[in-house]
Amino acid sequence: MAIDLRKAGLATTLVGVDSNPDHAAKALQLGLVDAVSGLEDAMIEADLVITAIPVNAIKSVLFKVLDHISATAIVIDTGSTKSMICKAMENHAKRSQFVAAHPLAGTENSGPDAAFAGLFCQKTNIICEKEKSSENSLKAAARIFSALDMRTIFMDPVEHDKHVAYVSHLSHVSAFLLGQTVLDMEKDEKNIFNLAGSGFASTVRLAKSSPDMWAPIFEQNAEYLGQALLEYIMHLQKFQYHLMKRDVNELHRIMTGANHIRKVLEGLDVKQKPGQLLENKS
Amino acid sequence: MAIDLRKAGLATTLVGVDSNPDHAAKALQLGLVDAVSGLEDAMIEADLVITAIPVNAIKSVLFKVLDHISATAIVIDTGSTKSMICKAMENHAKRSQFVAAHPLAGTENSGPDAAFAGLFCQKTNIICEKEKSSENSLKAAARIFSALDMRTIFMDPVEHDKHVAYVSHLSHVSAFLLGQTVLDMEKDEKNIFNLAGSGFASTVRLAKSSPDMWAPIFEQNAEYLGQALLEYIMHLQKFQYHLMKRDVNELHRIMTGANHIRKVLEGLDVKQKPGQLLENKS
Repeated sequence: MAIDLRKAGLATTLVGVDSNPDHAAKALQLGLVDAVSGLEDAMIEADLVITAIPVNAIKSVLFKVLDHISATAIVIDTGSTKSMICKAMENHAKRSQFVAAHPLAGTENSGPDAAFAGLFCQKTNIICEKEKSSENSLKAAARIFSALDMRTIFMDPVEHDKHVAYVSHLSHVSAFLLGQTVLDMEKDEKNIFNLAGSGFASTVRLAKSSPDMWAPIFEQNAEYLGQALLEYIMHLQKFQYHLMKRDVNELHRIMTGANHIRKVLEGLDVKQKPGQLLENKS
Repeated sequence: MAIDLRKAGLATTLVGVDSNPDHAAKALQLGLVDAVSGLEDAMIEADLVITAIPVNAIKSVLFKVLDHISATAIVIDTGSTKSMICKAMENHAKRSQFVAAHPLAGTENSGPDAAFAGLFCQKTNIICEKEKSSENSLKAAARIFSALDMRTIFMDPVEHDKHVAYVSHLSHVSAFLLGQTVLDMEKDEKNIFNLAGSGFASTVRLAKSSPDMWAPIFEQNAEYLGQALLEYIMHLQKFQYHLMKRDVNELHRIMTGANHIRKVLEGLDVKQKPGQLLENKS
């Protein structure tokens, strides 16, 4: 975000705050930020604050941020779960200065080294409880996410958590456990190394993701993720049942149904118009 | 293969045989082949025959091929299961003219339109029961797979089927059912379309694969795939158990273990040397 917002001319001075001093130094060295600072000092002059931290730390950090920002500053959160934080912010005196967002973009890598330009381009951003953010806050968020070339949609925080359980969190669980299954089986790693094709690499890519980031997300979304996981396991068991019966027709039928995902995903490429919805509303 | 073998100067005249007349016409139109023909006619003058067809059709097609080729021609099979075909070929009079291979490369797309140059580059090829192929046949196979820039390893067909169950076939099952789970949940497809990020797209990519190709592979490898699938389901259930208990430490521990796949997969990029093993042996 730092790279793209600077490029777009929206961010003139970028100050980084990081609990990990190595990451802070690296961000400075890479030119992602112009300075690093403690949280309180950084807040005093900030016009806009973006929190991009593990979801179990958001509440306490956000409250500290709000304690120290000016009356005109705006705070955007970017975490992958939204119910907890919206609930925590519900009656906060500075709620209107806050925008609860979730830009759906990322890779399996984390830390300042993982930053690159254009990550958010043509992706979807979600804003929850927009009616609780002031018009000014929403306008600022619209400028930010449009500059990132994102398309913003609005959603109830509970609906958000439910949907991302299926579309994002379940993919991660599926990849983590696929990786674990293959690692367990192939004690001699040479064989994975020899046999793994690009299909395996692509399916298991998310298993490289940071446990520090994902364990708190899974915990906060345990209810909906648990439902999604249960359904996934049921589908796998049903498939295994037909496999054990060598019922090729039924296997074929199930796969043909799943093939429909191609059309759904191809729709993603052609139909997205960046920033459209949020701009129309703001 | 046609594209790359022609480029490498190894194939001068390419004749396509396809049970689907539209695919045959398309392959001709795209210049993948110089001519299309019936199987028997095509065999008469062929120096080298490559079978790349669904695994349930291999046995009968292969026997027909062997009936019609010259005494010096060589046949290479490329299917994703190897036990059945090796067993079927065991006592065939022309066994020595046959090489049981599995070049581990492909995409979720199929048909002549899906062909592109360089698909096999830097990937792994497996040859089973090489002792049953003549020295000449192995030499020809070595030239072919080296021209494709592949690295060939030798493996027992049963071992092959067991390993690919984990490293290739399970990835496909996992993707097919992840796609199905999300499609089932998101009856209103607009939401997948809105929320699916690149993580989901990558994890579910293989769900676009052809059921005609994969149902027979799963059937032939049902025993080992069934084992792999059972272990995968057990891992998912264990994860769900810890998720329901909100045991973040245990979730973190499991994910950290799965993270090891990063090192294994990174080894893939740096350590492969194309064609090395086969060339040394031939």
